[in-house]
Amino acid sequence: MAPDPALAWLDAHYQAMPPVAAMGVVIDGYDGESLRLHAPLARHVNDKGCAFGGSMASLMTLAGWGLFTLRLRAAALDAEVFVADSSVKYREPLYADLVVEAWHAGDETWDDALDALRTRGRARMFLAACVRLPDGTVAAESRARFVALARR
Amino acid sequence: MAPDPALAWLDAHYQAMPPVAAMGVVIDGYDGESLRLHAPLARHVNDKGCAFGGSMASLMTLAGWGLFTLRLRAAALDAEVFVADSSVKYREPLYADLVVEAWHAGDETWDDALDALRTRGRARMFLAACVRLPDGTVAAESRARFVALARR
Repeated sequence: MAPDPALAWLDAHYQAMPPVAAMGVVIDGYDGESLRLHAPLARHVNDKGCAFGGSMASLMTLAGWGLFTLRLRAAALDAEVFVADSSVKYREPLYADLVVEAWHAGDETWDDALDALRTRGRARMFLAACVRLPDGTVAAESRARFVALARR
Repeated sequence: MAPDPALAWLDAHYQAMPPVAAMGVVIDGYDGESLRLHAPLARHVNDKGCAFGGSMASLMTLAGWGLFTLRLRAAALDAEVFVADSSVKYREPLYADLVVEAWHAGDETWDDALDALRTRGRARMFLAACVRLPDGTVAAESRARFVALARR
Protein backbone atom coordinates (compact mmCIF):
# COMPACT_ATOMS: atom_id res chain seq x y z
CA MET A 1 0.00 0.00 0.00
CA ALA A 2 1.40 3.41 -0.89
CA PRO A 3 2.01 5.61 2.13
CA ASP A 4 -0.60 8.28 2.79
CA PRO A 5 0.91 11.55 1.42
CA ALA A 6 -0.57 13.55 4.32
CA LEU A 7 1.12 11.27 6.85
CA ALA A 8 4.41 11.34 4.92
CA TRP A 9 4.19 15.15 5.02
CA LEU A 10 3.45 15.16 8.77
CA ASP A 11 6.31 12.73 9.39
CA ALA A 12 8.73 14.99 7.48
CA HIS A 13 7.46 17.92 9.57
CA TYR A 14 8.03 16.00 12.81
CA GLN A 15 11.50 14.77 11.84
CA ALA A 16 12.58 18.31 10.89
CA MET A 17 12.18 19.36 14.54
CA PRO A 18 15.32 18.37 16.51
CA PRO A 19 13.50 17.55 19.77
CA VAL A 20 11.03 15.34 17.90
CA ALA A 21 13.72 13.60 15.84
CA ALA A 22 15.50 12.85 19.16
CA MET A 23 12.33 11.24 20.50
CA GLY A 24 12.19 8.51 17.83
CA VAL A 25 8.56 9.33 16.99
CA VAL A 26 6.80 7.17 14.37
CA ILE A 27 3.27 7.80 13.09
CA ASP A 28 1.36 4.67 13.99
CA GLY A 29 -2.09 5.32 12.58
CA TYR A 30 -4.63 7.93 11.50
CA ASP A 31 -8.28 7.42 10.66
CA GLY A 32 -9.37 11.04 10.27
CA GLU A 33 -10.58 11.23 13.87
CA SER A 34 -7.60 10.13 15.91
CA LEU A 35 -3.85 10.16 15.37
CA ARG A 36 -1.59 7.56 16.95
CA LEU A 37 2.14 7.94 17.56
CA HIS A 38 4.74 5.46 18.81
CA ALA A 39 8.13 6.02 20.43
CA PRO A 40 10.61 3.51 21.87
CA LEU A 41 10.89 3.32 25.66
CA ALA A 42 14.72 3.30 25.36
CA ARG A 43 14.65 6.96 24.30
CA HIS A 44 12.28 7.95 27.11
CA VAL A 45 13.31 5.92 30.13
CA ASN A 46 13.76 7.68 33.48
CA ASP A 47 15.75 6.83 36.61
CA LYS A 48 13.07 4.30 37.63
CA GLY A 49 13.20 2.31 34.38
CA CYS A 50 9.81 3.55 33.19
CA ALA A 51 8.74 6.33 30.82
CA PHE A 52 9.67 9.89 31.84
CA GLY A 53 6.53 11.95 32.51
CA GLY A 54 7.84 14.84 30.43
CA SER A 55 8.23 12.52 27.45
CA MET A 56 4.64 11.30 27.77
CA ALA A 57 3.42 14.91 27.96
CA SER A 58 5.53 15.90 24.94
CA LEU A 59 4.19 13.02 22.86
CA MET A 60 0.60 13.84 23.77
CA THR A 61 1.21 17.46 22.73
CA LEU A 62 2.78 16.31 19.46
CA ALA A 63 -0.13 13.99 18.72
CA GLY A 64 -2.69 16.76 19.28
CA TRP A 65 -0.69 19.20 17.22
CA GLY A 66 -0.35 16.63 14.43
CA LEU A 67 -4.07 15.83 14.43
CA PHE A 68 -5.07 19.51 14.20
CA THR A 69 -2.47 20.08 11.49
CA LEU A 70 -3.71 17.09 9.44
CA ARG A 71 -7.32 18.31 9.67
CA LEU A 72 -6.32 21.77 8.44
CA ARG A 73 -4.28 20.30 5.61
CA ALA A 74 -7.22 18.11 4.53
CA ALA A 75 -9.34 21.28 4.33
CA ALA A 76 -6.59 23.05 2.32
CA LEU A 77 -6.19 25.66 5.07
CA ASP A 78 -2.77 27.18 5.70
CA ALA A 79 -2.31 28.00 9.38
CA GLU A 80 0.16 27.78 12.25
CA VAL A 81 -0.96 25.56 15.11
CA PHE A 82 0.14 26.30 18.68
CA VAL A 83 -0.57 24.60 21.98
CA ALA A 84 -2.07 27.22 24.33
CA ASP A 85 -2.50 25.25 27.53
CA SER A 86 -2.71 21.69 28.72
CA SER A 87 -3.32 19.59 31.77
CA VAL A 88 -1.89 16.12 32.27
CA LYS A 89 -2.68 13.36 34.75
CA TYR A 90 -0.13 10.60 35.26
CA ARG A 91 -1.88 7.40 36.35
CA GLU A 92 0.40 4.38 35.97
CA PRO A 93 4.12 3.83 35.35
CA LEU A 94 4.77 2.63 31.80
CA TYR A 95 7.49 0.02 31.29
CA ALA A 96 6.91 -0.40 27.55
CA ASP A 97 7.13 1.63 24.35
CA LEU A 98 5.02 4.78 24.30
CA VAL A 99 1.82 4.49 22.27
CA VAL A 100 -0.04 7.78 22.20
CA GLU A 101 -3.41 8.70 20.73
CA ALA A 102 -5.06 12.12 20.31
CA TRP A 103 -8.66 12.94 19.43
CA HIS A 104 -11.16 15.78 19.43
CA ALA A 105 -12.59 16.39 22.91
CA GLY A 106 -14.42 19.72 23.16
CA ASP A 107 -17.83 21.09 22.24
CA GLU A 108 -16.57 22.68 19.02
CA THR A 109 -16.67 20.41 16.00
CA TRP A 110 -13.93 20.29 13.39
CA ASP A 111 -16.34 22.13 11.07
CA ASP A 112 -16.71 24.92 13.67
CA ALA A 113 -12.94 25.28 13.83
CA LEU A 114 -12.46 25.27 10.06
CA ASP A 115 -15.24 27.86 9.66
CA ALA A 116 -13.72 30.08 12.36
CA LEU A 117 -10.34 29.90 10.67
CA ARG A 118 -11.84 30.79 7.28
CA THR A 119 -13.94 33.68 8.57
CA ARG A 120 -11.90 35.09 11.46
CA GLY A 121 -8.40 33.80 10.72
CA ARG A 122 -8.29 32.07 14.09
CA ALA A 123 -9.67 28.87 15.61
CA ARG A 124 -9.29 26.84 18.75
CA MET A 125 -9.82 23.18 19.49
CA PHE A 126 -9.76 21.14 22.67
CA LEU A 127 -7.99 17.87 22.05
CA ALA A 128 -7.59 14.92 24.37
CA ALA A 129 -4.74 12.45 24.32
CA CYS A 130 -3.59 9.44 26.26
CA VAL A 131 -0.69 7.05 26.59
CA ARG A 132 -1.67 3.43 27.19
CA LEU A 133 -0.04 0.45 28.82
CA PRO A 134 0.19 -2.66 26.60
CA ASP A 135 -3.01 -3.99 28.23
CA GLY A 136 -4.92 -0.83 27.28
CA THR A 137 -4.93 0.80 30.74
CA VAL A 138 -4.33 4.55 30.61
CA ALA A 139 -0.81 5.44 31.82
CA ALA A 140 -1.23 9.20 31.28
CA GLU A 141 -3.92 11.42 29.85
CA SER A 142 -4.14 15.03 28.79
CA ARG A 143 -6.53 17.67 27.64
CA ALA A 144 -5.12 20.62 25.74
CA ARG A 145 -6.31 23.74 23.98
CA PHE A 146 -4.73 24.34 20.60
CA VAL A 147 -4.99 27.54 18.57
CA ALA A 148 -4.63 27.85 14.81
CA LEU A 149 -3.77 31.19 13.20
CA ALA A 150 -4.22 31.60 9.44
CA ARG A 151 -1.05 32.47 7.55
CA ARG A 152 -1.45 35.61 5.47
CA MET B 1 34.74 27.25 43.88
CA ALA B 2 34.22 23.52 44.26
CA PRO B 3 30.97 22.28 42.72
CA ASP B 4 28.12 21.61 45.15
CA PRO B 5 28.09 17.79 45.68
CA ALA B 6 24.26 17.73 45.77
CA LEU B 7 24.10 19.45 42.37
CA ALA B 8 26.80 17.17 40.95
CA TRP B 9 24.71 14.22 42.15
CA LEU B 10 21.51 15.66 40.60
CA ASP B 11 23.35 16.36 37.34
CA ALA B 12 24.59 12.75 37.18
CA HIS B 13 21.02 11.62 37.83
CA TYR B 14 19.69 13.81 35.00
CA GLN B 15 22.38 12.77 32.53
CA ALA B 16 21.74 9.08 33.23
CA MET B 17 18.22 9.48 31.78
CA PRO B 18 18.38 9.23 27.96
CA PRO B 19 15.58 11.76 27.29
CA VAL B 20 17.23 14.28 29.63
CA ALA B 21 20.72 13.75 28.20
CA ALA B 22 19.21 14.37 24.75
CA MET B 23 17.79 17.69 25.99
CA GLY B 24 21.19 19.22 26.81
CA VAL B 25 20.05 20.16 30.32
CA VAL B 26 22.49 22.05 32.56
CA ILE B 27 21.84 22.96 36.21
CA ASP B 28 22.00 26.73 36.28
CA GLY B 29 21.47 27.55 39.94
CA TYR B 30 20.01 26.42 43.26
CA ASP B 31 19.54 28.45 46.40
CA GLY B 32 17.60 25.94 48.50
CA GLU B 33 14.25 27.44 47.46
CA SER B 34 14.36 27.38 43.67
CA LEU B 35 16.17 25.31 41.08
CA ARG B 36 17.13 26.73 37.71
CA LEU B 37 17.86 24.69 34.58
CA HIS B 38 19.15 25.76 31.18
CA ALA B 39 18.90 24.04 27.79
CA PRO B 40 20.00 25.23 24.34
CA LEU B 41 17.27 26.33 21.92
CA ALA B 42 18.96 24.32 19.12
CA ARG B 43 17.89 21.07 20.81
CA HIS B 44 14.32 22.27 21.33
CA VAL B 45 13.40 24.27 18.26
CA ASN B 46 10.08 23.56 16.53
CA ASP B 47 8.84 24.13 12.98
CA LYS B 48 8.32 27.84 13.74
CA GLY B 49 11.90 28.47 14.91
CA CYS B 50 10.91 28.83 18.58
CA ALA B 51 10.94 26.44 21.53
CA PHE B 52 8.69 23.37 21.24
CA GLY B 53 5.95 23.48 23.87
CA GLY B 54 6.58 19.88 24.86
CA SER B 55 10.21 20.71 25.59
CA MET B 56 9.22 23.61 27.84
CA ALA B 57 6.78 21.36 29.71
CA SER B 58 9.41 18.62 30.06
CA LEU B 59 11.98 21.05 31.45
CA MET B 60 9.49 22.46 33.95
CA THR B 61 8.69 18.90 35.10
CA LEU B 62 12.40 18.12 35.42
CA ALA B 63 13.05 21.27 37.41
CA GLY B 64 10.25 20.49 39.87
CA TRP B 65 11.37 16.88 40.18
CA GLY B 66 14.95 18.00 40.77
CA LEU B 67 13.94 20.54 43.41
CA PHE B 68 11.88 18.00 45.37
CA THR B 69 14.69 15.43 45.05
CA LEU B 70 17.29 17.91 46.33
CA ARG B 71 15.15 18.82 49.34
CA LEU B 72 14.70 15.15 50.23
CA ARG B 73 18.43 14.49 49.85
CA ALA B 74 19.26 17.45 52.09
CA ALA B 75 17.00 15.88 54.75
CA ALA B 76 18.69 12.48 54.26
CA LEU B 77 15.39 10.93 53.14
CA ASP B 78 15.42 8.16 50.56
CA ALA B 79 12.32 8.32 48.34
CA GLU B 80 11.16 8.04 44.76
CA VAL B 81 9.65 11.24 43.37
CA PHE B 82 6.93 11.10 40.71
CA VAL B 83 4.97 13.79 38.92
CA ALA B 84 1.26 13.09 39.51
CA ASP B 85 -0.39 15.84 37.47
CA SER B 86 0.43 19.17 35.93
CA SER B 87 -1.10 22.07 34.10
CA VAL B 88 0.81 24.30 31.72
CA LYS B 89 -0.01 27.65 30.14
CA TYR B 90 1.97 28.74 27.09
CA ARG B 91 2.07 32.55 26.93
CA GLU B 92 4.78 33.73 24.53
CA PRO B 93 6.94 32.13 21.84
CA LEU B 94 10.55 31.76 22.99
CA TYR B 95 13.29 32.35 20.43
CA ALA B 96 16.20 31.91 22.86
CA ASP B 97 17.72 29.25 25.09
CA LEU B 98 15.37 27.73 27.65
CA VAL B 99 15.86 29.03 31.19
CA VAL B 100 13.54 27.27 33.61
CA GLU B 101 12.94 27.81 37.30
CA ALA B 102 10.89 25.75 39.79
CA TRP B 103 9.80 26.64 43.30
CA HIS B 104 7.42 25.59 46.06
CA ALA B 105 3.88 26.81 45.37
CA GLY B 106 1.29 25.11 47.57
CA ASP B 107 0.00 25.46 51.12
CA GLU B 108 2.17 22.62 52.42
CA THR B 109 5.63 23.66 53.56
CA TRP B 110 8.74 21.62 52.91
CA ASP B 111 8.68 20.67 56.60
CA ASP B 112 5.12 19.34 56.21
CA ALA B 113 6.24 17.18 53.30
CA LEU B 114 9.34 15.86 55.05
CA ASP B 115 7.28 15.05 58.19
CA ALA B 116 4.65 13.25 56.10
CA LEU B 117 7.33 11.20 54.40
CA ARG B 118 8.93 10.26 57.71
CA THR B 119 5.65 9.34 59.43
CA ARG B 120 3.48 7.99 56.61
CA GLY B 121 6.05 7.07 53.96
CA ARG B 122 4.36 9.37 51.47
CA ALA B 123 4.29 13.11 50.78
CA ARG B 124 3.03 15.47 48.14
CA MET B 125 4.12 18.93 47.09
CA PHE B 126 2.72 21.45 44.66
CA LEU B 127 5.53 23.04 42.70
CA ALA B 128 5.37 25.90 40.25
CA ALA B 129 7.76 26.46 37.37
CA CYS B 130 8.21 28.88 34.53
CA VAL B 131 10.27 29.44 31.41
CA ARG B 132 11.28 33.05 30.80
CA LEU B 133 12.14 35.13 27.77
CA PRO B 134 15.52 36.89 27.96
CA ASP B 135 13.72 40.07 29.13
CA GLY B 136 12.14 38.21 32.06
CA THR B 137 8.64 37.86 30.58
CA VAL B 138 7.05 34.48 31.26
CA ALA B 139 6.98 32.31 28.11
CA ALA B 140 5.33 29.31 29.80
CA GLU B 141 4.31 28.45 33.32
CA SER B 142 3.20 25.34 35.12
CA ARG B 143 1.86 24.07 38.39
CA ALA B 144 2.36 20.41 39.18
CA ARG B 145 1.70 17.97 41.99
CA PHE B 146 4.61 15.71 42.85
CA VAL B 147 4.43 12.66 45.09
CA ALA B 148 7.33 11.15 47.04
CA LEU B 149 7.20 7.54 48.23
CA ALA B 150 9.73 6.37 50.82
CA ARG B 151 11.96 3.52 49.68
CA ARG B 152 11.77 0.52 52.02
